[in-house]
Amino acid sequence: MVQLTLIAVGSLKESYLREAAAEYKKRLSAFCKLTEIELKEHKLPEDPTEKEIASALSAEGKEILAAVPPKAYKIALCVEGKRFTSPAFAEKLGEIFARTGEVAFIIGSSHGLSEEVKQAADLSLSVSDMTFPHQLFRVMLLEILYRSFQIRRGGKYHK
Amino acid sequence: MVQLTLIAVGSLKESYLREAAAEYKKRLSAFCKLTEIELKEHKLPEDPTEKEIASALSAEGKEILAAVPPKAYKIALCVEGKRFTSPAFAEKLGEIFARTGEVAFIIGSSHGLSEEVKQAADLSLSVSDMTFPHQLFRVMLLEILYRSFQIRRGGKYHK
Repeated sequence: MVQLTLIAVGSLKESYLREAAAEYKKRLSAFCKLTEIELKEHKLPEDPTEKEIASALSAEGKEILAAVPPKAYKIALCVEGKRFTSPAFAEKLGEIFARTGEVAFIIGSSHGLSEEVKQAADLSLSVSDMTFPHQLFRVMLLEILYRSFQIRRGGKYHK
Repeated sequence: MVQLTLIAVGSLKESYLREAAAEYKKRLSAFCKLTEIELKEHKLPEDPTEKEIASALSAEGKEILAAVPPKAYKIALCVEGKRFTSPAFAEKLGEIFARTGEVAFIIGSSHGLSEEVKQAADLSLSVSDMTFPHQLFRVMLLEILYRSFQIRRGGKYHK
């Protein structure tokens, strides 16, 4: 069974998002071993400067890279990444699983991801040109993963 | 206050998605009068043919168009639509509100929208190349609307 690690900066504060995530994790357990790692968002002052944001992202980035399992294929979620349709992403995941059974997905904080993390990623994935809150985005990613496994299995979930 | 109508085919079955939608509707009440209209999804047999799907979409489409307030600017959500960043969409909404205070957003069923609805729309909006379940997508759209109002107000929600 493939091992997925979801590394996210910030926690799921809203109970309805925790419930949504729990439901997807239950469904995903049929397809993979999923580990979630929540890192603390670095606190920023009101109206942070560019430099303060960069410094927080850099510190978060170091913790992210330290949390990635050593042999995992790293997929960073960022708006400037590559776009896939659902079937194309399911196929891409299949290609990755053919090479390695360990994949890490990285979701940044509300300010995004540091350049170091983007450079270290094996693939940058863009889901939308629009910005979503990182909490809701985590549920969207779990849905994307669940749909990918369903497409690979040939289920009727994806019509 | 602008009047938004959200027309969706299918209901929010999961309690956590209803809670998420309720939270966004509460937040949106500061910015607009939002009316939700849920239409029934037309039942399809197992493994429907193309013709059966087209017939269900056409029937749903007629109900959708009948539900749109007569003077509303119509925005259809579909994968082949136009893409916007969050600030660009906030600006677009501002342009629309300058012309009319009534906007209808249309979310189709899991099979999408009929050609009639797409043709009748004033704008087709694509949020992602990936497919999301229409229930989760409704929450994503409410988030997009809330973010747009926050951007227009100059709030700190969108960083």
